[in-house]
Amino acid sequence: MKIITLLTDFGTIDGYVGQMKGVISQISDAKIIDVTHGVSGHNIREAAFILRNVVSFFPVGSIHIVVVDPGVGTDRKGIFITTKSQVLVGPDNGVLMPAARLLGDFTVYEIQNMKYVQDFVSHTFHGRDVFAPVAAHISNGVSFDKIGSRASNFVDLDFEVCSINKNSASGKVIYIDHFGNLITNIDGVRLLDLLKFDEKCMVFLGDHSLKIPFVRSYGFVNKKDCLATIGSSNFLEIGINQGNAAKKLKVKEDTAVKILFS
Amino acid sequence: MKIITLLTDFGTIDGYVGQMKGVISQISDAKIIDVTHGVSGHNIREAAFILRNVVSFFPVGSIHIVVVDPGVGTDRKGIFITTKSQVLVGPDNGVLMPAARLLGDFTVYEIQNMKYVQDFVSHTFHGRDVFAPVAAHISNGVSFDKIGSRASNFVDLDFEVCSINKNSASGKVIYIDHFGNLITNIDGVRLLDLLKFDEKCMVFLGDHSLKIPFVRSYGFVNKKDCLATIGSSNFLEIGINQGNAAKKLKVKEDTAVKILFS
Amino acid sequence: MKIITLLTDFGTIDGYVGQMKGVISQISDAKIIDVTHGVSGHNIREAAFILRNVVSFFPVGSIHIVVVDPGVGTDRKGIFITTKSQVLVGPDNGVLMPAARLLGDFTVYEIQNMKYVQDFVSHTFHGRDVFAPVAAHISNGVSFDKIGSRASNFVDLDFEVCSINKNSASGKVIYIDHFGNLITNIDGVRLLDLLKFDEKCMVFLGDHSLKIPFVRSYGFVNKKDCLATIGSSNFLEIGINQGNAAKKLKVKEDTAVKILFS
Repeated sequence: MKIITLLTDFGTIDGYVGQMKGVISQISDAKIIDVTHGVSGHNIREAAFILRNVVSFFPVGSIHIVVVDPGVGTDRKGIFITTKSQVLVGPDNGVLMPAARLLGDFTVYEIQNMKYVQDFVSHTFHGRDVFAPVAAHISNGVSFDKIGSRASNFVDLDFEVCSINKNSASGKVIYIDHFGNLITNIDGVRLLDLLKFDEKCMVFLGDHSLKIPFVRSYGFVNKKDCLATIGSSNFLEIGINQGNAAKKLKVKEDTAVKILFS
Repeated sequence: MKIITLLTDFGTIDGYVGQMKGVISQISDAKIIDVTHGVSGHNIREAAFILRNVVSFFPVGSIHIVVVDPGVGTDRKGIFITTKSQVLVGPDNGVLMPAARLLGDFTVYEIQNMKYVQDFVSHTFHGRDVFAPVAAHISNGVSFDKIGSRASNFVDLDFEVCSINKNSASGKVIYIDHFGNLITNIDGVRLLDLLKFDEKCMVFLGDHSLKIPFVRSYGFVNKKDCLATIGSSNFLEIGINQGNAAKKLKVKEDTAVKILFS
Repeated sequence: MKIITLLTDFGTIDGYVGQMKGVISQISDAKIIDVTHGVSGHNIREAAFILRNVVSFFPVGSIHIVVVDPGVGTDRKGIFITTKSQVLVGPDNGVLMPAARLLGDFTVYEIQNMKYVQDFVSHTFHGRDVFAPVAAHISNGVSFDKIGSRASNFVDLDFEVCSINKNSASGKVIYIDHFGNLITNIDGVRLLDLLKFDEKCMVFLGDHSLKIPFVRSYGFVNKKDCLATIGSSNFLEIGINQGNAAKKLKVKEDTAVKILFS
């Protein structure tokens, strides 16, 4: 069974998401799965990070629609990206790129054939009028070349690479989750070669310097204690057990992070 | 495949929506789609507006349950409304009427046959005990006349009609969306005959008077600038590009709006 | 058609729920239904109460995953519980127990066979890496004994029993819902033998004493008036018609409640 996922900044209050699901259901029997509709308004980086972390858990053939689209109605392109195993659909503002790169072998198409969008395309809601019907037609097996043509120009977006050496790793906070955990762009797999679980480490986080344990998971420190761990997306994560690290430490996205080993 | 949608003021915290989905799933294989559960508590007008804007995007045969129901347990009727193409189910408090009128050729039925509701009907949760099972039985093809009988008395609700003349249009804010955009009851299609995109216009909004551009979409003005546009529901909409107009201008629902042309 | 429900404290912002749905969809075609993702962070009692109230509305064969899991990554067990009609999957912290007891004839299994979990099990997200795949394999008909073995030690959790005598009933507030209604552990069915609708009763609620009507439902008192009723989960409930009793009366979970008859 085909899957179409939705990732937007629409919230779930207004019924905009319901309209998209109605449009998809008119065209396709695909199973519709919400990834999130709670992206902060117009925050392309945040949406790109969530998409990147979710795609590898979905089956081959899944189609992901992202609508975080401050440029809707201007001349920004509507695109879809085919990859080794899945398809991404959304605005050409970079939001699809980190996921496309992770999935591999990607090709960017510009949506061009008006036959596969709504009869009336509003200027303000391409999620419903363009991306939803395009994704639904793709799930029905319409060939990519019928819907659009390959684009060589597109907006890119990258989460900067962290630097890791023998004594330390440096990067930044790229995402703060619902629990207030601080997720960095420091690669957890590489870190595991250099740091051992249950050792203390020094972490510099903006103005703060913390001497905290590096542990397998949150439950290994006392309630309300601070810790460093490898999160479920395989990045270094700073958190407080059953507490909100972002609020407690007053840290925001983009804050510089450095971790010293031993 | 049959579709049943849900539109309530239950929030998604308590599991009430889960109970409704359980009841539906016991009776029917219909695909269940959430329109929203974030209607402000007991706000019938808001729910009616969201429903009206969502139904036309759903396939023929879809069944929409609305539970914004301050009168639950009193002698207000439970009803369903058949229309040209879809069915609406909910309390008799007007919430279904704007959608019924939009879908056309509607008939109101009072739910009467206890065979098609839960064995035990609580006094406080007809969404789960009456409307969910009725919608599920309708999706299974049970005939309307078996479930209830035609009602000639029912509560009506209307979004007042705006007035448009050669020089101006007057109406009011009928909905404020998740982004803080102010949606009016001024008909966008008729407005397009009288106003050109990219012209400035005078807008009176409660105590404010604004000279703002009338544009195709939000991206046509600078970030944080105010604008007028035709929103995705075809109504005149006042907003701020990547900002919250309702907060910035301190405007609430029901505020009078007047727009001058030229 | 098989059903898998999800009940977590993840919120719907971060895409964690989307990851779980992806994992399930890779293994099983089950229909996925959200019960809630809005449980207060790490609040096991709250999740247990919501689960207990939702299971009886789901069809035989449904599988319910609960992830409120402050001990993730420590040596707390992962379990599933078979009952007369449905299966529960989650951490061994008591969260599944009130529902298991309600469904009856339950057996607790410890999850042991690594064949039925993700290839890589993170230390921080067993919802995705353990519970989602286990539930999906159960929905595919994998036998319980292949996945784990019976456990005789497990963490229990109980909502204390209220005491009811001829003249009064005593208990406490065990849940405050989205509307601010105060749900107690006082059994509604037994109360109905002792109290008549539309009579006044004395309610002691922490420091408050209220003389309020006992009514069929909220709509039987004036807007903003306080009332006692039997809620949709069959417990005594104190609320305010179209108002928020928890805020107005400043009552929190665990507050003692006593109701006098006549």
